[in-house]
Amino acid sequence: MLTKNNTKFIKSLQLKKFRQKEGLFIVEGAKNTLELLNSPYKIETLIVSEAFLSKVKKENFTLAVEPIIVKEKELSTLGSFQTNTEALAVVHEMEVTEYKAKGFDLVLDDIRDPGNLGTIIRLADWYGIQNIICSETTAEFYNPKVISASMGSIFRTHLYRRDLKEFLSKNKHRKIYGALLEGKNVHQVNFEDTGLLVIGNESHGIHQELISLITESVTIPKIGHAESLNAAMATAIICDNVFRNC
Amino acid sequence: MLTKNNTKFIKSLQLKKFRQKEGLFIVEGAKNTLELLNSPYKIETLIVSEAFLSKVKKENFTLAVEPIIVKEKELSTLGSFQTNTEALAVVHEMEVTEYKAKGFDLVLDDIRDPGNLGTIIRLADWYGIQNIICSETTAEFYNPKVISASMGSIFRTHLYRRDLKEFLSKNKHRKIYGALLEGKNVHQVNFEDTGLLVIGNESHGIHQELISLITESVTIPKIGHAESLNAAMATAIICDNVFRNC
Repeated sequence: MLTKNNTKFIKSLQLKKFRQKEGLFIVEGAKNTLELLNSPYKIETLIVSEAFLSKVKKENFTLAVEPIIVKEKELSTLGSFQTNTEALAVVHEMEVTEYKAKGFDLVLDDIRDPGNLGTIIRLADWYGIQNIICSETTAEFYNPKVISASMGSIFRTHLYRRDLKEFLSKNKHRKIYGALLEGKNVHQVNFEDTGLLVIGNESHGIHQELISLITESVTIPKIGHAESLNAAMATAIICDNVFRNC
Repeated sequence: MLTKNNTKFIKSLQLKKFRQKEGLFIVEGAKNTLELLNSPYKIETLIVSEAFLSKVKKENFTLAVEPIIVKEKELSTLGSFQTNTEALAVVHEMEVTEYKAKGFDLVLDDIRDPGNLGTIIRLADWYGIQNIICSETTAEFYNPKVISASMGSIFRTHLYRRDLKEFLSKNKHRKIYGALLEGKNVHQVNFEDTGLLVIGNESHGIHQELISLITESVTIPKIGHAESLNAAMATAIICDNVFRNC
């Protein structure tokens, strides 16, 4: 049974300060929870509907914790997404600290929008990119909107928070590509198999202090009139060009 | 001066039912408002900060309506984005009703998320796509999140709401591309200069009844593990492939 204290505690985790204090975060929705069950993340509490539990049993998932079964209505009032009527989990944070370069990595300089960060994580997982190195100012990894937009991919990617100037300086032996408005046409760049791709802030692009560390500036050719592209979309287009010869 | 009635009326436009009743919508933020001033859209009320007004005067914009000047704090409580301290406008809807095919058009089948619709509009404008034909169930065009994410591109694109089965049936003489999970590798498709690209719903893809009307199914090759890509990102990647030989 779900106690009043459980409910209060879970709701408190909608706020960053409580997530950080407890080292816990919330995963919501069937798709994200199924991906979580398949991951090494440690679950503290698992709250599910009868329907979701049947699905889990049918697919032979092993549950490391005893689930609390609640009515769908109760679930929808518990998390941050009212449309969630299937599952919610309280999960222990698990940040990877030691960085190991692996093929092509993404570097996010000040991506503030949690939805953008989440879809970029999903994109990275689509292309098999394992590492995403984020500036100190990039959105919090465990924001519910990040988790939701990542569609479970957050459990398969390694996210790091780093001082990017220091990080890029240490990785100068690798090719560092950067998405900039006046670079080489992305269609004409011969991307190497290993390297780093730096994506800048939604409004201001890549910080000036990082630009000198970029080996090759890359631009998506424009035909129409929009001033710029959404940062996550630009990342998608460049990644498709990076991996088109794989 | 901003009256209490003005404030109440503007706040009411945050709700779809009032927008639809009045045929009016809200534009927020400096970037979007500047783009609006450059467009043929008719402004009902324009509310600005002193700073924004100076910017507008400096850039020699002609204001068709007398602006109401307010404090930045007042502006941030007026609209749906608390970060907006520069400008807000109440604008008359202007849907284009007569569809004229123009080169490559986008067809959105049930894109529900306003952020996705907005970024797709921005993307279309980047690639010079003028027409976006949306199913009845696609997000409302004048939702504040659509306007915001479109970053002014909504004022340069033509949005239509249509029964897609009927629309595609009438456009059978054109090539109809569709983003599907099991189609031809997008890197190997020779896109024609004119055509339609159908993008499906975020969770369920393209409706079954439309699939038989698609001439060529297109797929973005996957290397990693994510089950799918965000619909707006997939649109971006396919558009980059459509226009790469322009």
